[in-house]
Amino acid sequence: MSIEKTVSQPVSNWAKGDGPESDIVISSRIRLARNISGYAFPHTMSNQAADEILNAVRLAVDNDEVRQEFGPLEFVRLEELSPVERQILLEKHLISPQLLEDIKNRAVILSEDEFLSIMINEEDHLRIQLFLPGLQLEEAWQKANRVDDLLEKTLDYAFCEQRGYLTACPTNVGTGLRASVMLHLPALVIAGQINNIITAISQLGLAVRGYYGEGTKAVGHLFQISNQITLGQAEEEIIRNLLTVARQIINQERSARAALYKNNKSQLEDKIFRSLGILSYSRMITTEEALTMLSDVRLGIALGILDNLTQRDINELMMLIRPAFLQKMAAREMTAQERDTERARIIRLRMEKLKK
Amino acid sequence: MSIEKTVSQPVSNWAKGDGPESDIVISSRIRLARNISGYAFPHTMSNQAADEILNAVRLAVDNDEVRQEFGPLEFVRLEELSPVERQILLEKHLISPQLLEDIKNRAVILSEDEFLSIMINEEDHLRIQLFLPGLQLEEAWQKANRVDDLLEKTLDYAFCEQRGYLTACPTNVGTGLRASVMLHLPALVIAGQINNIITAISQLGLAVRGYYGEGTKAVGHLFQISNQITLGQAEEEIIRNLLTVARQIINQERSARAALYKNNKSQLEDKIFRSLGILSYSRMITTEEALTMLSDVRLGIALGILDNLTQRDINELMMLIRPAFLQKMAAREMTAQERDTERARIIRLRMEKLKK
Repeated sequence: MSIEKTVSQPVSNWAKGDGPESDIVISSRIRLARNISGYAFPHTMSNQAADEILNAVRLAVDNDEVRQEFGPLEFVRLEELSPVERQILLEKHLISPQLLEDIKNRAVILSEDEFLSIMINEEDHLRIQLFLPGLQLEEAWQKANRVDDLLEKTLDYAFCEQRGYLTACPTNVGTGLRASVMLHLPALVIAGQINNIITAISQLGLAVRGYYGEGTKAVGHLFQISNQITLGQAEEEIIRNLLTVARQIINQERSARAALYKNNKSQLEDKIFRSLGILSYSRMITTEEALTMLSDVRLGIALGILDNLTQRDINELMMLIRPAFLQKMAAREMTAQERDTERARIIRLRMEKLKK
Repeated sequence: MSIEKTVSQPVSNWAKGDGPESDIVISSRIRLARNISGYAFPHTMSNQAADEILNAVRLAVDNDEVRQEFGPLEFVRLEELSPVERQILLEKHLISPQLLEDIKNRAVILSEDEFLSIMINEEDHLRIQLFLPGLQLEEAWQKANRVDDLLEKTLDYAFCEQRGYLTACPTNVGTGLRASVMLHLPALVIAGQINNIITAISQLGLAVRGYYGEGTKAVGHLFQISNQITLGQAEEEIIRNLLTVARQIINQERSARAALYKNNKSQLEDKIFRSLGILSYSRMITTEEALTMLSDVRLGIALGILDNLTQRDINELMMLIRPAFLQKMAAREMTAQERDTERARIIRLRMEKLKK
């Protein structure tokens, strides 16, 4: 396996649109924050210590048991990647914006199927991430937990009986667990119900974020819902809570879709077809507008209004058109306007192909 | 010839997009206001008098000389037409909104080619209208003048040596002439120059109106420019003045198009293709939005950006999609939403056909 493959394919396997409830749930993610005992947290540690952590984690995953369960893993230092390649990993959600804030002595370990990503020396020494398509929080948790157990055979985690896993930021202390689901909620947005739902979710101790996490906008009607509390609840309980809320939101989105289809079918069809028209004809389009139009088309597929297209096509396009990936494919840096033109061209080509 | 043909064909010959400067000038029109001596003006005359006028005009056009020069003419009382048919004549500009305000004792005489239309008992006893495609004001004036001469052989016009032709409204006294051109000025609108031009035109004693005359909006970037003054200038002078101004505006529109194409080609192409996309995909569209999108497409044709389509296609569609014509084709009355759906369907069908 090579990192070249990872940065050449627009979509991770877990984002292709399979899995349970995939008409609404793009993906499920488990993230575990872990630190190595006896070392300062990344933001205060020395270069030498950082390097030691890198090596320790690399050795910890380099064994047959890991390979057998998760396939071959690749260890990549950020410094070995070009800026565009780093952006692609970010666009694919395999690394976080925080990891890119300083690329020295930082690395990521990726499984070939891209279900597993371990960031090293981000806010914590380790950030283990496990992605699965659709609504599979418990399954993702089991796998992440298994990775954690395998690593713990070699690594000495910073752990306190009273507080649990110790982390650089107190919001992660305890389980170090963040579970999240990425939901596509166009009908709740169109019906104007989304704000009430976001308020209700927040009151349940869960966070609602945009597609790229904290502080990002919910472009393309994609919402990430995750737990806020990491302390005082067992992992299973955190996941069960999130799953319950996710199922409720899925039902609300389904009801909103059914109501829209029943009461505003003509308007809805018009909106969806117009978005398809703009995607098929525009000569320049921003990422945000394209994602909004693709969101409408995705809804059209889910409702059976559009039948030549699949959720997978749209999920792929949603990744394909992102700035870094566009530049990687074109093998050159581009201005924003060049990207808008290239993005429109790629979408048009894809739309023509799909309609045949 | 039958009126059925007139109300079944969406576009008059003069609106099909031929003629000089037809990339910018849709049509030229001459209108002459005339009244019959010894009768009160229409707004105060008796039913009997109105009926006598109808008969007098009908007889005046019913002779071989007229037929030889203008082809067979049809005399149609408004009362004989259905409401939808009357609306179609209005949509085709063959009659005015004012003529429809009261349909009793009112009529229109139409030539088979629809170049000539004589409204009877509108604001004046006669409103002679002569339409030609493109910029042909002088040619239209010669023909209208000829109709006027032929009618005058039979009819005794109300005429005063000092004031000229007498009319119901003092703004028409003198020549009774209104000359106008219908211009398509999308580039001046896009470039934000149109308001300055309208102000300048107004200062020259000319009026700028929307597609359906006084008080209507300039939908589809179509502007009607006409003389305001009817008194104290000879017909030829009025027409020469209008022609000079029209030529200037045509040059300004051409410059604006060239500048847009040179400096903002990408944005312009994007705008034009998006409009084509919406026309090709929407499931509901209002007349106004459709005309705006068709205007963009018409500009795209003029600039060579779109090459499968012709000005004539677009001019036809601009008429085809109007409310009354839609209902006539569907042979039933429709709600606004039904019309929007039907309009979108007809445009889609036409776009698919044209792209083959």
